[in-house]
Amino acid sequence: MIVTASAPGKTILFGEHFVVYGEPAIVIAIDRDVKVTAERRDDSNLHISSNLGFSGTFIGERFETEEGDGSEKTLEPIKITAETLFQTLKKKCGLNITIKSNIPIAVGLGSSGALAVATVAAIGRLLGANLTREEIVKLSFESEKYVHLNPSGIDQTISTYGGVIVYSKSEGISHMKIESSIPIVIGNTRIQRNTGRLVDSVRIRKETFPQLMTQLTQTAGQLTREAISVLKKGDLKQLGELMDINQGLLVSAGVSSEELDRLINVAKKGGALGAKLTGAGGGGCIIALSKIGKRKEIAEAIRTAGGIPLIAEKTDEGVTTWTS
Amino acid sequence: MIVTASAPGKTILFGEHFVVYGEPAIVIAIDRDVKVTAERRDDSNLHISSNLGFSGTFIGERFETEEGDGSEKTLEPIKITAETLFQTLKKKCGLNITIKSNIPIAVGLGSSGALAVATVAAIGRLLGANLTREEIVKLSFESEKYVHLNPSGIDQTISTYGGVIVYSKSEGISHMKIESSIPIVIGNTRIQRNTGRLVDSVRIRKETFPQLMTQLTQTAGQLTREAISVLKKGDLKQLGELMDINQGLLVSAGVSSEELDRLINVAKKGGALGAKLTGAGGGGCIIALSKIGKRKEIAEAIRTAGGIPLIAEKTDEGVTTWTS
Repeated sequence: MIVTASAPGKTILFGEHFVVYGEPAIVIAIDRDVKVTAERRDDSNLHISSNLGFSGTFIGERFETEEGDGSEKTLEPIKITAETLFQTLKKKCGLNITIKSNIPIAVGLGSSGALAVATVAAIGRLLGANLTREEIVKLSFESEKYVHLNPSGIDQTISTYGGVIVYSKSEGISHMKIESSIPIVIGNTRIQRNTGRLVDSVRIRKETFPQLMTQLTQTAGQLTREAISVLKKGDLKQLGELMDINQGLLVSAGVSSEELDRLINVAKKGGALGAKLTGAGGGGCIIALSKIGKRKEIAEAIRTAGGIPLIAEKTDEGVTTWTS
Repeated sequence: MIVTASAPGKTILFGEHFVVYGEPAIVIAIDRDVKVTAERRDDSNLHISSNLGFSGTFIGERFETEEGDGSEKTLEPIKITAETLFQTLKKKCGLNITIKSNIPIAVGLGSSGALAVATVAAIGRLLGANLTREEIVKLSFESEKYVHLNPSGIDQTISTYGGVIVYSKSEGISHMKIESSIPIVIGNTRIQRNTGRLVDSVRIRKETFPQLMTQLTQTAGQLTREAISVLKKGDLKQLGELMDINQGLLVSAGVSSEELDRLINVAKKGGALGAKLTGAGGGGCIIALSKIGKRKEIAEAIRTAGGIPLIAEKTDEGVTTWTS
């Protein structure tokens, strides 16, 4: 039996950075996914191949690289996930794992969370476990801890459930039912971001101007709360305007950049209702909200300006598995 | 006798737009000026020549254009100023007026205010009046009313007194003594702005999201208040950071533009401590705060990006007159 699991990526719609200081953030699942296929091997090895340029085999504690420098480090989370499942389900076997992802990695679109979720779901089902969504989130959290130092669990949750999530430090995660579609174009600046450095820079600015930055943070919190009701109304025009306002607050926090500003401006010229950086900033991606039928024009504008466009949409589908 | 008067231009350092909603703004006089030379004529005509592409003669109510389409409309404020002075001083004569300005017009650098102030000072002294600064502000206000629909009087005040002014609707104008120099580079986008339309767009955004935009406005007010103490300390690094934060708030207000964002980013890459749009936005100018000895590099970066740079500095000198 071969089991395949698909889990969606995510993008932050509102509230990045300010979430660190207790304000709410809104995250949506996008119709880009990581597919993980799992089948048993006769030996006890863990063989992993991927379309990400990393392949190899874990033979006990030893790793044999087939493709890609640093494959062992990159594929280690898969090994951790498999071992976590073996332990939990009290079963163990050799595995062939195949990863097919259409989510660009390391740009804040939740590729590692989706990979962890799809891996748990695929191996879990292959081993005959009927994992609940809660269990998938919990088990996939193990490997994410390895990837990020201080994960909030948002990425695993959104990849497991799909849809829209509101998160805050005090309230935790809550799911939001949003009827309307959210057509977006993501624009990758091709500039690597450094999340830790950016979070630090905001903290330093907050230490320099505590009262001002606290007011700014509270304004961002109010913005996210207004975005929640605008999302419920399904008013895309107002949603776009709130994205523009949020971008200004991120400029004030010091996390935008020349390349992000440029892609935001060309996306809006191309017909976007609003646009902002998404995630840590400093590089990485912008997200532009599209008018109906305008996504190709916006994508083309982003490409012309040197970015990599990615046409996407909110998806309400979380992790799914099937056998073949 | 020939009288010449010089009056400086200005730039808004902090608080544009939010000043409409009661928050304070900081305005500085810059070492660019309008020079107005006045001498008597034997007839009763008012002849005006300028280096702005507008010249002509008012003969009673008639106007004879010498140079420039729309000269009559552009030079009308000079006529109003002259008539206001004739009435106030109960004297009347024909005049040759020569205008030499090195302040670009209609980009928010206070050229019309400086022109009005220099005109009042030159004609006033030619007619033998010993006008106080208060009187110069008041008299020059007459022609500014013609140019702007709702002038606050800031431009005339800063052109008359020089230095640094804090203004708010409730507190009015107060002068601030700032010891340190404020080395800046202004970057003109070459894009015409429409102040009225931009003020309207902020009002509409405020009507759409009243609570959020009120919080944003209060944050801007807090920023200007912190800028006042940073200016008094003479901490240019912190001043630059506050300009960056202010720029974000102006992005949130919806008044920045692609061209402004670009010039701001190149100025910062060129070594600016901070940069923001100045004035109405939508076009017009940016202002970049320079490190010591970095102004030429910043100016060059602005020029390369398609803007017109203008190296400037705070001046504590207001209007001055001399005879020859």
